[in-house]
Amino acid sequence: MTDDPLLAPLLAGDRRALSRAITLVESTRADHRARAAALLDALRSAGREALRIGLSGTPGVGKSTFIEAFGLKLTGEGKRVAVLAVDPSSTRTGGSILGDKTRMERLSRDPRAFIRPSPSAAHLGGVARRTREAVSLCEASGVDVVLIETVGVGQSETMVAGMCDLFTLLLAPAGGDELQGVKRGIMEIADLILVNKADGELKSAATRTVADYAGALRLLRKRPQDPQGFPKALPVSAVTGEGLDRAWEEMQTLTAWRRESGHWEANRAAQASHWFAEQVREGLLARLERDPQVRARMTELAEAVAAGERAPEAAAAEMLETMKAG
Amino acid sequence: MTDDPLLAPLLAGDRRALSRAITLVESTRADHRARAAALLDALRSAGREALRIGLSGTPGVGKSTFIEAFGLKLTGEGKRVAVLAVDPSSTRTGGSILGDKTRMERLSRDPRAFIRPSPSAAHLGGVARRTREAVSLCEASGVDVVLIETVGVGQSETMVAGMCDLFTLLLAPAGGDELQGVKRGIMEIADLILVNKADGELKSAATRTVADYAGALRLLRKRPQDPQGFPKALPVSAVTGEGLDRAWEEMQTLTAWRRESGHWEANRAAQASHWFAEQVREGLLARLERDPQVRARMTELAEAVAAGERAPEAAAAEMLETMKAG
Repeated sequence: MTDDPLLAPLLAGDRRALSRAITLVESTRADHRARAAALLDALRSAGREALRIGLSGTPGVGKSTFIEAFGLKLTGEGKRVAVLAVDPSSTRTGGSILGDKTRMERLSRDPRAFIRPSPSAAHLGGVARRTREAVSLCEASGVDVVLIETVGVGQSETMVAGMCDLFTLLLAPAGGDELQGVKRGIMEIADLILVNKADGELKSAATRTVADYAGALRLLRKRPQDPQGFPKALPVSAVTGEGLDRAWEEMQTLTAWRRESGHWEANRAAQASHWFAEQVREGLLARLERDPQVRARMTELAEAVAAGERAPEAAAAEMLETMKAG
Repeated sequence: MTDDPLLAPLLAGDRRALSRAITLVESTRADHRARAAALLDALRSAGREALRIGLSGTPGVGKSTFIEAFGLKLTGEGKRVAVLAVDPSSTRTGGSILGDKTRMERLSRDPRAFIRPSPSAAHLGGVARRTREAVSLCEASGVDVVLIETVGVGQSETMVAGMCDLFTLLLAPAGGDELQGVKRGIMEIADLILVNKADGELKSAATRTVADYAGALRLLRKRPQDPQGFPKALPVSAVTGEGLDRAWEEMQTLTAWRRESGHWEANRAAQASHWFAEQVREGLLARLERDPQVRARMTELAEAVAAGERAPEAAAAEMLETMKAG
């Protein structure tokens, strides 16, 4: 057990402690990593679980507005909600920030809500670790629903789906030909497709789009983790709030069915063992960076290879032999 | 030294031996890998070098027709030419085969040419290793120019550029707005942009497209490895053969300048040490698959994690510790 000063306030649901703990797991410093590992281990025994919902959508579909409206609906029912963001584009210039509090003003002031913007740096591998650990911290602090927001880029969606219980795709109303714009792979991991902006002038377009996607979803292979009728396409309006109750009901229906049928547990188990293997791989590669002796030998051999004194393959074999012995 | 029966015929330029040796390096069987490593090492002493030209372009730009025409031009000058293909899409259904001999009928019958279609399986990492080793085999067998063909998907282009002396982008004539279709990252690695189909009805469109890309290239940051005027955009017609002489001249001018200025050597040195580091990383990860004891322990721990008996992080730490000791 750890006597980390963050432990008690985290378990008591203190939002500042949660925020600090997430900053801790975002750090790559060795002492921070060790402290984070001990903290996460200690929190496990609390045995708390949240419903983890992944939410993806291209910029402009109204993700922030939807999360604000949906989040307020849940907090209004007494639930505690956390919003995390996975933003592969944040390293590039000009990408807007996911989980931007200024775009979810009311939700960010809600004492039952916790919003964490995407960190600015890091490759997707590091982001995956940080996000998974942040999810665990949210769960331990008593959050009921964790929303994990990402953008419509294949790799990040697959990654987010790999740490969620439900995966939701938010779309804008569009003509039938734009259906092609959603990659088949993303359709295949979606549990719910929500067509936003089903209000005012766009209402009928949204209804048509829902029908188009419902049709497209029926063409996909039936998945064992789905009850009759899922995955589903539904219209919502983040602005008027219409359809939000229905969307939440469908999420609960799906969750209840999966829990009862054992798929919920099986999915979490598969995610955990996948995550274990991923961490072993990352840990192996990290040895190349961490150990000064290994790094020095890598540099020496790389220089010998560059100078043409050694063949790349032979130098690599020697390096691997050295690391086995070390 | 190795007494591999492929060694002598390979060095004598026998195409069947080359083909067999490539099949050998494509294999992942441990005994094949060992034989391939010994063979590659023995061939190094021949000290032969080819000009390695990367060639990318989206389907429909006429890559096969261009390679056939360009290849025949080179073999007509007495040069030996090899065509290798890196096809990240070959794992997906419906992707056409790169390096398809039936689409380069005349070149495939030319005794000075060697065409190797892309292998059907494998992730990009494995493809990189196979292709690098196939390039080495081609060089050792006395090939003068190795063309490495790939398609317009960012990752595979970067990978091919990482094993070439020159990188060429083949485009079709298009309206000015389609310039956006070429990703900036690809523009930045191109040494020559060839606008194909500069014949018949499309000739003036091709001229305009060349001017558009020439303008776009001028806006890019000057690279140290380029002499005045490079990277360049040129019109070519794979059908009439117009522009092929010019394209080859420009490639030779660029190569000569880079050789003289030391950039050619520096690039090959950087590629070799990068490749060394990549092989160390792959080798580390391969330990998880190869050693039966390691695999068994991985399975045990993954099961414990799935059953909720162990935290993924703690199990990963234990696994890494085990591997350090082993």
